[in-house]
Amino acid sequence: MPRPIGRRRWAIPEGYIPAWSTGPEPQMTSHETLCLLNASDQDAHVEITAFFEGRDPCGPYRLTLPARRTRHVRLNELDDPEPLPRDTDFATVVESDQPIVVQHTRLDSRQAANALMTTLAFADE
Amino acid sequence: MPRPIGRRRWAIPEGYIPAWSTGPEPQMTSHETLCLLNASDQDAHVEITAFFEGRDPCGPYRLTLPARRTRHVRLNELDDPEPLPRDTDFATVVESDQPIVVQHTRLDSRQAANALMTTLAFADE
Amino acid sequence: MPRPIGRRRWAIPEGYIPAWSTGPEPQMTSHETLCLLNASDQDAHVEITAFFEGRDPCGPYRLTLPARRTRHVRLNELDDPEPLPRDTDFATVVESDQPIVVQHTRLDSRQAANALMTTLAFADE
Amino acid sequence: MPRPIGRRRWAIPEGYIPAWSTGPEPQMTSHETLCLLNASDQDAHVEITAFFEGRDPCGPYRLTLPARRTRHVRLNELDDPEPLPRDTDFATVVESDQPIVVQHTRLDSRQAANALMTTLAFADE
Repeated sequence: MPRPIGRRRWAIPEGYIPAWSTGPEPQMTSHETLCLLNASDQDAHVEITAFFEGRDPCGPYRLTLPARRTRHVRLNELDDPEPLPRDTDFATVVESDQPIVVQHTRLDSRQAANALMTTLAFADE
Repeated sequence: MPRPIGRRRWAIPEGYIPAWSTGPEPQMTSHETLCLLNASDQDAHVEITAFFEGRDPCGPYRLTLPARRTRHVRLNELDDPEPLPRDTDFATVVESDQPIVVQHTRLDSRQAANALMTTLAFADE
Repeated sequence: MPRPIGRRRWAIPEGYIPAWSTGPEPQMTSHETLCLLNASDQDAHVEITAFFEGRDPCGPYRLTLPARRTRHVRLNELDDPEPLPRDTDFATVVESDQPIVVQHTRLDSRQAANALMTTLAFADE
Repeated sequence: MPRPIGRRRWAIPEGYIPAWSTGPEPQMTSHETLCLLNASDQDAHVEITAFFEGRDPCGPYRLTLPARRTRHVRLNELDDPEPLPRDTDFATVVESDQPIVVQHTRLDSRQAANALMTTLAFADE
């Protein structure tokens, strides 16, 4: 019933992992998430590359997104090939061998009440 | 005067129903909403399918969106064929037999002041 | 130097004017805004129609957006042909005779700290 | 490995620099950011023009975005040819000689807890 939906190449210019948090873990830990959806019947092999202001890009961070599954990747948990720096501006490009859909969300709990933001990523045609 | 606008197939990779709330119900109950608009002169028959990280998709959740109407569907109120789990990552695909427009909003009132986020869903061409 | 950018028909499925506010007016009054940009050299004649869950659409609300100007329309201030109801779900369609760009923003100050959300509207091709 | 992704012309109808802030600088200073990503191998020359409700546009604000870099431009720090006014509605158009991706984010810390919002900008075809 699920058919593929999406694109193979996405970009998110906004990226920032807040350096501190308020409230119970893990729900209220400040985090930056890439929400990935693979509605196809084929596993998707995904590569995430991070871009910075003052240095060369790092990555790719590789993961497999199984067929008919979603995965909400917390960027503060990536550590191979290297953890992403905190309190530092970055951007990401997501590439997949199957059509997927990518949405970017941040939960920021640095102050007493959490703040949220989200947007679809930009899809290359 | 209203003409149809939109697409027949939409995806929202982000989905999460917060497990608790602060403040008066129902306005301040934490919720995840799919806002649907049918600006056409034909009723739209809509199916929502939910995707997860560790299990097969569930649904479809079926509803009729009358001609020239909007409906803001709170995902925490869906219960047929089954309620959506709380505190669990998911994603949704929305399919309609008429062109509609889909926007995703979350109100999170787990901490003392509510947080909001919204984005258009991704539309298949 | 500015060339036209945008589309002539936009939709925003999410719409809701919070019924109360906290903090100094007018900045912290809860509001729902349609941000309109006309980067062309021609004045744009704009019509906003509101859709509801349980009644027929209302409008159009008419305004002129001068050439090379932006206008951030607070929906709680519209009153011709009728004010929009508070604490009620609605959606909007924006039509223009010139290409414009439409973004939707809400500031919700019902609790002690304000919440924000924003998204581009959906553009018909 | 990085290939170009994006467009050369973007618009953001929403723009507003809050007039005050709460919390430690610079992280918690209220700000409006344009996040720019240049994933190509060519430096991008970028021009930002600001549009207002009651006066002619100002700018262009010029910057170079190096190849394979991101830059998160805080609009409250622009001062050539002139600073952008506070507590005033505006909109922006971003033009580049290379394909880039543009996302708009606001952090509003006027009340005790910060609020966030973000969206992709509108890309001309």
